[in-house]
Amino acid sequence: MIYADNAATTKMSDGAAKVFVSLLDEAWGNPSSLYAHGQKAKEVLEQARQDVAGVIGASPREITFTSGGSEADNQAIRTGAALGRKKGKMHIVSTAFEHHAVLHTLEALKKEGFSVTLLDVHENGIVDPAEVEAAIREDTCLVTIMYANNEIGTIQPIREIGAICRKKEVLFHVDAVQAVGHIPVNVTDDCIDMLSASAHKFHGPKGVGFLYAKKGIRLTNLIEGGAQERGRRAGTENVPGIGAMAQALKEADAGMAENAARVVRMRDRLIAGLQEIPHCALNGDQERRLPGNVNFCFEGIEGESLLLLLDDKGICASSGSACTSGSLDPSHVLLAIGRIHDVAHGSLRLSLGEDITEEEVDYIIRTVKEVVAYLRSFSPVWRDLMAGKKEFIL
Amino acid sequence: MIYADNAATTKMSDGAAKVFVSLLDEAWGNPSSLYAHGQKAKEVLEQARQDVAGVIGASPREITFTSGGSEADNQAIRTGAALGRKKGKMHIVSTAFEHHAVLHTLEALKKEGFSVTLLDVHENGIVDPAEVEAAIREDTCLVTIMYANNEIGTIQPIREIGAICRKKEVLFHVDAVQAVGHIPVNVTDDCIDMLSASAHKFHGPKGVGFLYAKKGIRLTNLIEGGAQERGRRAGTENVPGIGAMAQALKEADAGMAENAARVVRMRDRLIAGLQEIPHCALNGDQERRLPGNVNFCFEGIEGESLLLLLDDKGICASSGSACTSGSLDPSHVLLAIGRIHDVAHGSLRLSLGEDITEEEVDYIIRTVKEVVAYLRSFSPVWRDLMAGKKEFIL
Repeated sequence: MIYADNAATTKMSDGAAKVFVSLLDEAWGNPSSLYAHGQKAKEVLEQARQDVAGVIGASPREITFTSGGSEADNQAIRTGAALGRKKGKMHIVSTAFEHHAVLHTLEALKKEGFSVTLLDVHENGIVDPAEVEAAIREDTCLVTIMYANNEIGTIQPIREIGAICRKKEVLFHVDAVQAVGHIPVNVTDDCIDMLSASAHKFHGPKGVGFLYAKKGIRLTNLIEGGAQERGRRAGTENVPGIGAMAQALKEADAGMAENAARVVRMRDRLIAGLQEIPHCALNGDQERRLPGNVNFCFEGIEGESLLLLLDDKGICASSGSACTSGSLDPSHVLLAIGRIHDVAHGSLRLSLGEDITEEEVDYIIRTVKEVVAYLRSFSPVWRDLMAGKKEFIL
Repeated sequence: MIYADNAATTKMSDGAAKVFVSLLDEAWGNPSSLYAHGQKAKEVLEQARQDVAGVIGASPREITFTSGGSEADNQAIRTGAALGRKKGKMHIVSTAFEHHAVLHTLEALKKEGFSVTLLDVHENGIVDPAEVEAAIREDTCLVTIMYANNEIGTIQPIREIGAICRKKEVLFHVDAVQAVGHIPVNVTDDCIDMLSASAHKFHGPKGVGFLYAKKGIRLTNLIEGGAQERGRRAGTENVPGIGAMAQALKEADAGMAENAARVVRMRDRLIAGLQEIPHCALNGDQERRLPGNVNFCFEGIEGESLLLLLDDKGICASSGSACTSGSLDPSHVLLAIGRIHDVAHGSLRLSLGEDITEEEVDYIIRTVKEVVAYLRSFSPVWRDLMAGKKEFIL
């Protein structure tokens, strides 16, 4: 099996799994308990907090552990909204191609009286900082923009946007679920006020993530109850999961430069190979994208059939976000970068892991070429395109 | 080490840990992914849903996986409130000794315009169903009462309350975090509409729980985003954790009758032993309590010192809920059953695990006797009591 869907989830690293298993034995106590066995768990928790904070340039007290990226996104945006409402500022700036954890939270806030400006992301899948600046109003309480897109992998000019938000004194939240552990992220240099991350995207466990919130920002609880996480997130802490996340993040951070350089070479080889297929197009900027992300549209085919045939040939890929599979709507991300419905349906995301080899990349190229040709051979749309009854878009 | 704080958290069972580790290798894919590797994870998820549902008498579709008991409590109560608000019903009935995940959510709802009646639980720590019935008003949208109290272990007449709520057509939520896996719980027989549970209380992993919601109840999202859990709880599912929870629950259910009988014997032996200490009192009804729960107040001592000295002697215990440790306030549960502040401060909860032995129980009795006597030997309060300057309460 060639697993090329690392943007959907990653396999837990051996190091992280080892930490998890050892903590099941050594630190299964409740970190809120007074006895030594509980305090051991508390130490693991606080060491993990320090490790995580260190990697992103934060202080330990600025890290709140959550059950994942979606929870962190929801809590950050709810916090920005609650703080804004107190000051009578009820406008939020975001983009049209955010993750649904952001977009659906914004939808909910609209029902509660907030107004939301969703910026265009242009054909290259990148937000223009000048447009962010122009969108900020007197009543803007929050700007929430993702670090890197989960479907097309484009990296946003976060540092420039951060500087604008700081200057305008507007809170800046970054959904960095796809970025953390893959590209350098530093909340201080980037002027980020809140940042969401998810462990299972960087070879940590599922069901664990964290929310960074700059000192002074009082988080709104999504989950009320016990006094865990300084009272901002109730529930007994998942100590083994949190310890494993910290381990995975440290590993990802230590190997980042080397891994990224290798993976970028593999990515570019894969892009070059797939570009030989007629009537296709790379989605998103070719350079300013995550090391492992490749996303194409192929004219005249259905993405779902493509995925199933690739699975038959041992390749795990996706058409876009795993979170929305089962939906018949085309990707909101591809629509946001201007792909029309028909073309957006024929999309393929390949997100490479750090251990991908040249042979595997070549096998993927060969196989996608074969499968695309095969699917087109009996596609009525393709027949019409070839017969000139319809015009090619790509 | 004698671990007698199983109400705070339990060690993951070997069987559950084994399932967890094997799923890390075999089912680490994203259950939303179309390829076989993702579908394998989906199968694990759905099998777990079936297993969990089976144990509590529910249908699989009625189970939503959450990050734990606190999240489930918050979501259930928010759901009851949202459904009530739609009908103009904004009154909720609960009790004064619920878990903070319930009480703090109710506090938040009060700020949003809801009114809340917190019922008394009497000296035996048990709610009177007639009082529940009397408290239900025309505008009551929700009754939320715990199955068994987390501090004093008293088991509530859930079936009788369920029948009353069903008759009155009011939604009934049960925080069953301490009950599930320890005593028989059947949502159908008990007329329960929503029920919260947490895996780490029955030898499953931390960071995993579930919310049962009867067919027809549309849950309010706490976490917006992807379409996971039929759109009611976003975020990539923690498949290994969920699989391990199901395993732990099946094990707990299979061994329940036998374990409970043994643990009840141990509990009663422990209670009898501790009752020999002068000026102490068992908190909560002696019979209608969880198999493993023992909770005493000792006059003239500080609970925290007691715990630290017991820890020195190798006994892990608590003064009450782990979630509120660090707080100087006496337990709201002990106050609710009528203990005055001074006495409530001298509390000790011992929650026994299934593997507790008679020798361990005897060691606990001996040690608690020694430590209580030692602490009283230099307690100014005890001196005053003995000198007749203060009156004994217990």
